[in-house]
Amino acid sequence: MNVDGVPTRSVRARPGEGCVEVIDQTRLPHELRWVRIGSLEAAAHAIRSMQVRGAPLIGATAAYGVAIACAGDASDPGLERAVAALEVTRPTAVNLGWALRRMRSRLRPLPVAERPAAAWAEAEAIAEEDVAVNRAIGRHGLRLLHGLRPPDGRPLAVMTHCNAGWLATVDRGTALSPVYAAWDEGWPLHVWVSETRPRNQGLLTAWELAQQGIPHTAVADSTAGVLISRRRVDAVIVGADRIAANGDVANKVGTYLKALACRDNGVPCYVAAPLSSVDLACPTGADIPIEERDGDELRVVQGLDAAGVPSSVRQLPAGEPVGNPAFDVTPARLVTAIITERGVWPASPEGLRGLVGGAA
Amino acid sequence: MNVDGVPTRSVRARPGEGCVEVIDQTRLPHELRWVRIGSLEAAAHAIRSMQVRGAPLIGATAAYGVAIACAGDASDPGLERAVAALEVTRPTAVNLGWALRRMRSRLRPLPVAERPAAAWAEAEAIAEEDVAVNRAIGRHGLRLLHGLRPPDGRPLAVMTHCNAGWLATVDRGTALSPVYAAWDEGWPLHVWVSETRPRNQGLLTAWELAQQGIPHTAVADSTAGVLISRRRVDAVIVGADRIAANGDVANKVGTYLKALACRDNGVPCYVAAPLSSVDLACPTGADIPIEERDGDELRVVQGLDAAGVPSSVRQLPAGEPVGNPAFDVTPARLVTAIITERGVWPASPEGLRGLVGGAA
Repeated sequence: MNVDGVPTRSVRARPGEGCVEVIDQTRLPHELRWVRIGSLEAAAHAIRSMQVRGAPLIGATAAYGVAIACAGDASDPGLERAVAALEVTRPTAVNLGWALRRMRSRLRPLPVAERPAAAWAEAEAIAEEDVAVNRAIGRHGLRLLHGLRPPDGRPLAVMTHCNAGWLATVDRGTALSPVYAAWDEGWPLHVWVSETRPRNQGLLTAWELAQQGIPHTAVADSTAGVLISRRRVDAVIVGADRIAANGDVANKVGTYLKALACRDNGVPCYVAAPLSSVDLACPTGADIPIEERDGDELRVVQGLDAAGVPSSVRQLPAGEPVGNPAFDVTPARLVTAIITERGVWPASPEGLRGLVGGAA
Repeated sequence: MNVDGVPTRSVRARPGEGCVEVIDQTRLPHELRWVRIGSLEAAAHAIRSMQVRGAPLIGATAAYGVAIACAGDASDPGLERAVAALEVTRPTAVNLGWALRRMRSRLRPLPVAERPAAAWAEAEAIAEEDVAVNRAIGRHGLRLLHGLRPPDGRPLAVMTHCNAGWLATVDRGTALSPVYAAWDEGWPLHVWVSETRPRNQGLLTAWELAQQGIPHTAVADSTAGVLISRRRVDAVIVGADRIAANGDVANKVGTYLKALACRDNGVPCYVAAPLSSVDLACPTGADIPIEERDGDELRVVQGLDAAGVPSSVRQLPAGEPVGNPAFDVTPARLVTAIITERGVWPASPEGLRGLVGGAA
């Protein structure tokens, strides 16, 4: 997608220099800063410190991290050291383990001398496949949205939550991919961007949309009910962190409340996610553990001070008791459909088995 | 209620000095600062700038403002000037107009010489009545909560939204009054405090509860779904800004989403409000206009800087489009009951007619 009018990706490969560049997302939306990752340590740091975030982007960055490490030491111990160092950076991100396993099984059978080039090629393939998957999600989502276009020509109003845009992936995004596809087609659009407390990833979404020139409005998370009930929203589209075998969806906390408001008002609620988010080994949403994060995410708010310098303020004292569950589970019955790279599927055990089984 | 262990009210009358003192709520929870109101201008400023907030407290402060003005000029023009100056400070607060009308009709028939003393007495009466109403809400709510106490002895877990505590009233609060009544009875309690973006009145609630020593946990607004669905909440209690004749409830934005989560999980959702919040002239919630407030409430966040000095950060640029509806409407069907000073009533046209008609 575009940054300052120039097409780019969230991770830019520099194979000639043996490095990649990523946007430091901890600085967004207040400051656009590209960070060079030229070592295993830098890759691990970027993931751990959330300079890169979003499961698909974490996976791609980890793959590049292995490739960068292999340029220095592609021996078996070197490879294992790289995988081990990256694996522990974000233990809960599904794509991280998947990307590392894929890199290892691609490289281990090869002679050590061939590994550096193969590692780079495999990391590139992972990144390219992510883009292709997201483009497919966009195409399938576009067909769904077509049926919701207001007949009176007013902009189609989509609400999203958190950031499931191109910043969370290599490009195009998941939940936002259908929006970008519609924008490419020239549809009039409007996106409601939910702030997504406490980490405010909605601000990333607002920044993304602003960069593409897509009309949008940032709102507090609590406004979903009044906006949906007063017919200001034609569809909600969110991403997913994990989809259980029965179709229950774990996603950023607040998703479930939006889905409830959709059902109460007859507005469709779509989940857009790659097949890799479906976990058939997880029977229901009740089996998904909810990550409890550091309370300072709620106590301290980041922004710019009066001089425009990145700064923060404490809105709750250090000792104030805070709960910070990062995810919630939306029951399958509230999910209108799941949009994947293989098409649109019902959020049901049958739908998901067909989907992952490949019976598209 | 208590501040630093000393019982107090949100407005302290100093009749001997012809003034009142209020807590500057724009500074809370970061700083406790009492402000002296000794003139009509100071009273108007306190309401306009939201040093005092919450409909009942606004009404009482306006009444004291009239009394303070009358000490200087109790003539008909002086009285009308005071009423007019206060009336325009917060045109949407229901109790403001009510309190001013009451002051005027009490004072106009009196000789000018008797007005200053009568005005002070009437303002005191308004404040005392508010406390009595809230105490009655607490007693009636306590009976409801009794039936929800966990049999295993674990603390009763109540979730609230915004601030409908003693800071929003003269004392005791509305939604929090049953909580304070239960605490006075020695019940083990736990209160989930919703941050209430964008103005973060939940931080006022957390401060209130901390001052009384009541266990509580601050959470992002979006967490209501996961907390209610995972059985961490026994009841939701909220206040109301206006209750329509059919039982629909307008309250701080985010209330409707909590009510939806309650219904989806069989958890009761109570509205605690004085009779004066029932507006039989308003047929349904759809007839209640939703106030759209300044977008900077979302763009700029208040707190303390690293040195502990009140400060703010900008989290969205000035030009970033922001929507800021301040209220939402919870349909009557999602309200388990309305707790008033006349007892507990169903949120239905019949219930409300009986309630306001006085058939208790």
